[in-house]
Amino acid sequence: MNSFGTLLRLTTFGESHGPAIGGVLDGYPAGIEIDEEYVRMQMRRRRPGQSAITTQRNEADEVHFLSGVFEGRSTGTPIAFIIENSNKRSSDYENLRSVYRPSHADYVYDAKYGLRDHRGGGRSSARETAVRVCAGALAMLALRRFGISVQAYTSQVGDIALNGGYADYDLASVEDNAVRCPDAAVARQMEQLILQTKQQGDTVGGIVTCVIKGAPAGLGEPLYDKLSARLAMAMLSINAAKGFDYGLGFAAAAGFGSRQNDKFCMREGEISVQSNNSGGIQGGISNGQPIYFRVAFKPVATILQEQCTVTAVGDEVSFSAQGRHDPCVVPRAVPVVEAMAALTILDFMRIAGLCPVNANAISGKNK
Amino acid sequence: MNSFGTLLRLTTFGESHGPAIGGVLDGYPAGIEIDEEYVRMQMRRRRPGQSAITTQRNEADEVHFLSGVFEGRSTGTPIAFIIENSNKRSSDYENLRSVYRPSHADYVYDAKYGLRDHRGGGRSSARETAVRVCAGALAMLALRRFGISVQAYTSQVGDIALNGGYADYDLASVEDNAVRCPDAAVARQMEQLILQTKQQGDTVGGIVTCVIKGAPAGLGEPLYDKLSARLAMAMLSINAAKGFDYGLGFAAAAGFGSRQNDKFCMREGEISVQSNNSGGIQGGISNGQPIYFRVAFKPVATILQEQCTVTAVGDEVSFSAQGRHDPCVVPRAVPVVEAMAALTILDFMRIAGLCPVNANAISGKNK
Amino acid sequence: MNSFGTLLRLTTFGESHGPAIGGVLDGYPAGIEIDEEYVRMQMRRRRPGQSAITTQRNEADEVHFLSGVFEGRSTGTPIAFIIENSNKRSSDYENLRSVYRPSHADYVYDAKYGLRDHRGGGRSSARETAVRVCAGALAMLALRRFGISVQAYTSQVGDIALNGGYADYDLASVEDNAVRCPDAAVARQMEQLILQTKQQGDTVGGIVTCVIKGAPAGLGEPLYDKLSARLAMAMLSINAAKGFDYGLGFAAAAGFGSRQNDKFCMREGEISVQSNNSGGIQGGISNGQPIYFRVAFKPVATILQEQCTVTAVGDEVSFSAQGRHDPCVVPRAVPVVEAMAALTILDFMRIAGLCPVNANAISGKNK
Amino acid sequence: MNSFGTLLRLTTFGESHGPAIGGVLDGYPAGIEIDEEYVRMQMRRRRPGQSAITTQRNEADEVHFLSGVFEGRSTGTPIAFIIENSNKRSSDYENLRSVYRPSHADYVYDAKYGLRDHRGGGRSSARETAVRVCAGALAMLALRRFGISVQAYTSQVGDIALNGGYADYDLASVEDNAVRCPDAAVARQMEQLILQTKQQGDTVGGIVTCVIKGAPAGLGEPLYDKLSARLAMAMLSINAAKGFDYGLGFAAAAGFGSRQNDKFCMREGEISVQSNNSGGIQGGISNGQPIYFRVAFKPVATILQEQCTVTAVGDEVSFSAQGRHDPCVVPRAVPVVEAMAALTILDFMRIAGLCPVNANAISGKNK
Repeated sequence: MNSFGTLLRLTTFGESHGPAIGGVLDGYPAGIEIDEEYVRMQMRRRRPGQSAITTQRNEADEVHFLSGVFEGRSTGTPIAFIIENSNKRSSDYENLRSVYRPSHADYVYDAKYGLRDHRGGGRSSARETAVRVCAGALAMLALRRFGISVQAYTSQVGDIALNGGYADYDLASVEDNAVRCPDAAVARQMEQLILQTKQQGDTVGGIVTCVIKGAPAGLGEPLYDKLSARLAMAMLSINAAKGFDYGLGFAAAAGFGSRQNDKFCMREGEISVQSNNSGGIQGGISNGQPIYFRVAFKPVATILQEQCTVTAVGDEVSFSAQGRHDPCVVPRAVPVVEAMAALTILDFMRIAGLCPVNANAISGKNK
Repeated sequence: MNSFGTLLRLTTFGESHGPAIGGVLDGYPAGIEIDEEYVRMQMRRRRPGQSAITTQRNEADEVHFLSGVFEGRSTGTPIAFIIENSNKRSSDYENLRSVYRPSHADYVYDAKYGLRDHRGGGRSSARETAVRVCAGALAMLALRRFGISVQAYTSQVGDIALNGGYADYDLASVEDNAVRCPDAAVARQMEQLILQTKQQGDTVGGIVTCVIKGAPAGLGEPLYDKLSARLAMAMLSINAAKGFDYGLGFAAAAGFGSRQNDKFCMREGEISVQSNNSGGIQGGISNGQPIYFRVAFKPVATILQEQCTVTAVGDEVSFSAQGRHDPCVVPRAVPVVEAMAALTILDFMRIAGLCPVNANAISGKNK
Repeated sequence: MNSFGTLLRLTTFGESHGPAIGGVLDGYPAGIEIDEEYVRMQMRRRRPGQSAITTQRNEADEVHFLSGVFEGRSTGTPIAFIIENSNKRSSDYENLRSVYRPSHADYVYDAKYGLRDHRGGGRSSARETAVRVCAGALAMLALRRFGISVQAYTSQVGDIALNGGYADYDLASVEDNAVRCPDAAVARQMEQLILQTKQQGDTVGGIVTCVIKGAPAGLGEPLYDKLSARLAMAMLSINAAKGFDYGLGFAAAAGFGSRQNDKFCMREGEISVQSNNSGGIQGGISNGQPIYFRVAFKPVATILQEQCTVTAVGDEVSFSAQGRHDPCVVPRAVPVVEAMAALTILDFMRIAGLCPVNANAISGKNK
Repeated sequence: MNSFGTLLRLTTFGESHGPAIGGVLDGYPAGIEIDEEYVRMQMRRRRPGQSAITTQRNEADEVHFLSGVFEGRSTGTPIAFIIENSNKRSSDYENLRSVYRPSHADYVYDAKYGLRDHRGGGRSSARETAVRVCAGALAMLALRRFGISVQAYTSQVGDIALNGGYADYDLASVEDNAVRCPDAAVARQMEQLILQTKQQGDTVGGIVTCVIKGAPAGLGEPLYDKLSARLAMAMLSINAAKGFDYGLGFAAAAGFGSRQNDKFCMREGEISVQSNNSGGIQGGISNGQPIYFRVAFKPVATILQEQCTVTAVGDEVSFSAQGRHDPCVVPRAVPVVEAMAALTILDFMRIAGLCPVNANAISGKNK
């Protein structure tokens, strides 16, 4: 339902135009220093209005912690936080009360629940992802202790795609441009395409690639809670996500085992592999190599062009969206993908018994 | 872990070379006639040795029901069943005791558990999917009451792919060829490629497409148990699966909202859509349209060519697989994909309160 | 962890001396009118300072709904609410920073988490039960539609106990006295005992009895999620609860089957029973009769008398509690027991498919 | 449903008169030596026909392991096992097809599922507890590594009760008599009462007390998965269980805080307590002291005396049970209580990260 995870469990709530959205992160290890500035930095990466290629809505997205943190450290009890909805313009949406916007969730909410909060998508609004980013930032603070990092980037916008894999780029440069693409030249093209699309009142899709480094071997549970299966679920739970693959992914379907198999070898006395086509996961369990995967996002359904649609009572009408919307969701989806990945990995660390409830009992060099 | 589902929950067990594999299906509605011949028919579709393009291993794959069925009908209590491992040739695998096969789960099981049953992949063997097919067949018997059907087919093998979508083919013809592709001409090419690959001791990947028709609007739970997210998890839990997408999927990333949005319209007095790029799912909830998705499978890791690898104690060795293996997993994966889809849909029917525990309380024309 | 329930799931958060406590109620049916005055009424029943026999702390306990309610009705999305901690006197607790109070959770929180919020019990404070009462009130609003009522009362304080069973009293009179005992004479004795105990700086235990009427047959899941097992878990999750029994309960152990068996009979054309020693539950499943059970509460651990104890660093010290505390938890536990019962029953209604997600699809006379 | 536990999860199946009952134990740590003789010994303690005071039915209750054990050790994959129903006399039950036995689950199964397997109680038969005992024995094999022991005994039969607490007896003597009572003189009285009751075709209730020693501090999760709450649920899930309390339990209700509080003290340099009225659990979390609790069992509903009842079609009839039944369930419930306790504790060890998936990574003297 509105919860994610097994031992580390995020429960979220809130509609885009209610008083606040928020979350409860349960099962978070005790004794972690909660670096609020780090959380704010992550929130800014997802925040609307951050650049010319995102929506011009302006939400402060300030996080208020209500519980679970005491004298700067996590206590092991649920960390609850809320984010107020400061920039509500409900009147923008009054015309949506009975109209079903094409490719939005309006219709299915009515079908399922018999009623809905029509203002700005209500619960189905991508605004909910702010909660994920906050919780994901907390997860990353814990993962840092184990030397685990999570880094995503934009690898495709419309038909403009990176040619290389994650190892071909300096991922430290991802934040250098508004698109969050590690190749500056390609980033410029993507930015162009997004601005062009915006001018036409249209939207465009794209792909986010994510890499997790430093995760130990042994994460993931056979057979149904495979690491790959849980990551797939995590990513497909994000608004506008349409696909997931890891390692060679869909490209693997076109090739041969003799070329794709990752041969084991010895490297500095450790068992390693000659290639990483498996994407760091074999049989659903991490093998200690970098874990990488892609998430496909459709173009945002809200376009400013006129579309035909129907009302709840079955009238065919013409409809144009108003307001301020993202022409491309991908740059702002980057931190959301990272957040969901971090929550998934930390949950599996907990399940495997590698991250005890009392973080001060964690040993190791990265403490 | 080894369970799948919320109110309808399949728990599976068994290693490929132990006495038996099996499953427990809990939460199955009471009062359904258990058509054992239908179950057997589905089992034959997954069975090894069914054609020239599959492994020549011979497993009877006979299902023995141990509980939950009384006088031919389900009782609402757990349906347990076992499938004996009749064709065990453990000696084929003695050489695997300490060798880590490339791109197999051998290494990660050792890393996670400290030991493993090395015979034939043990728990990570694709033999486990027989249990899924049996449970999926039971799920389909229940879904039939609601007029819901699930149909998958091979849409790509290596670089040979169907051009059309599910609506372009007569899916009733899927079983007419060994590849399970609804276009006879393309099927022949795929078959050729598989046989060629087999002769070279190699393996090849492919894609399975699946369509669910007749599902009501309202299935799927915001925000983390979206129908799309659960389907993704279900599919990525299948051996060798590398990717999942639904509706336009990865192709959506390359396009524009103005062309992809599914405009609502009225059709015979009912709210309908002019296109189905959403794949029957909006905001994670079914909208009453056909649900369709793709699953990418990598080439089977077991090839008969010589590969270098390492042993558990860190020796680099040369390794050649022995035994009888599938050159392409895709034709036999078709019923597995259907099974996981059926289990997912029936679970959501139960969660939404649309499928009561007592099936005789189900009303409607398809009973 | 900090969540309760399967399809109807309450997640709670908050420490007694943080900014707020609160909860998220997920899976609540859509379309229910949220009668906020009813919620407030229930909150007042649990509120501190309500009478001479409860703690004199003064908390407004005002509930702020943040989500899930739109234009006065539930939307099917998570209902989040917070209750601010207005009457915090953290300084009362500074002396507790390193002292382990006898029979409190101080020591075990340190043992488990390596640190704790020492102010007023932090997460283990009975203040958290305010969240349960709010969520329980919402559950009762939904249960009313089905004609299901939940009513608890004080049946024992110290050694003063009611002689009769629930059928011997007019439960409408429970709120007529501060102890919440339906026998006015016994209530006066209980009140006396509590006041006497308070004067001595001591605390006293007691028993709450609860009756659920109107629940349909068929609630509860064999074998581990029996209605009786879930009620036991719900009740033992309440602070200071030490025991649970249902029907004849512990008294059943002393008797014979020939006298305890509930013989079936026909009554007005319906199958009924001649007695209800089973407490409305047979084989873990409700049988349509009134469900009744008892919950034993220990005396509150916080006494104003001097006790010896130890500090975190192992010093033996003498300790006297300060502040305002309940001499007997039982009168205020009555609405908490009701709340947990209501949440349990509504969850089982959802699981059995008897309470659809869209409440407007509920048929029947009590709508 | 038919599963118990979070990370260590037992799923059971089977009807008393089907081909077999069985279970799947998932999440069991890898590398534990599976001592099958120990399992058989525990099975014999629950086995029917073991003495003059139990049913004279004769079931071999032989356990067949199907998976999860390789070369004598657990592999971390699900341990499945079946127990064949050898001594089925279904004809004994033909007269039950349409009769609802008083205080049995016959009626509620029909009400819930619309049909039932009427033979011998079907799924609701206490025969299912054999599966629990087998799984519990496996749990105890793992707990032994940590120096944790679980010991239950009969503390009351009818109105004959032990006076002392667990510390007053030599629990090693529990198996010295058929009743499993550690006081030989009281045991003889209990045995007398059971035989007397049997002669009258009647049944009698009783109480089992259980003690867990060696469990570390920190087990149990606030607030809803308290160790006490989970134990209560575990125990109330056992057939015929009517009540649960821990520590002083219901007796706590009658007393005062000043006398019940467990004062902390230093003992041999360790923090300890002067008394253990809390039963080893404070705030729902274990404190390192012995955990003890009681479970009340009603008299078995099957009596050989004539009773009036009704049929499924509403006829009032007279009914006498045939066959071989237990006059008192308590002596055979002792190993069942232990099993459920062991499963609960091992699950919490897993959740707390104290029992890793790879048991060979467990350190400590009791390995």
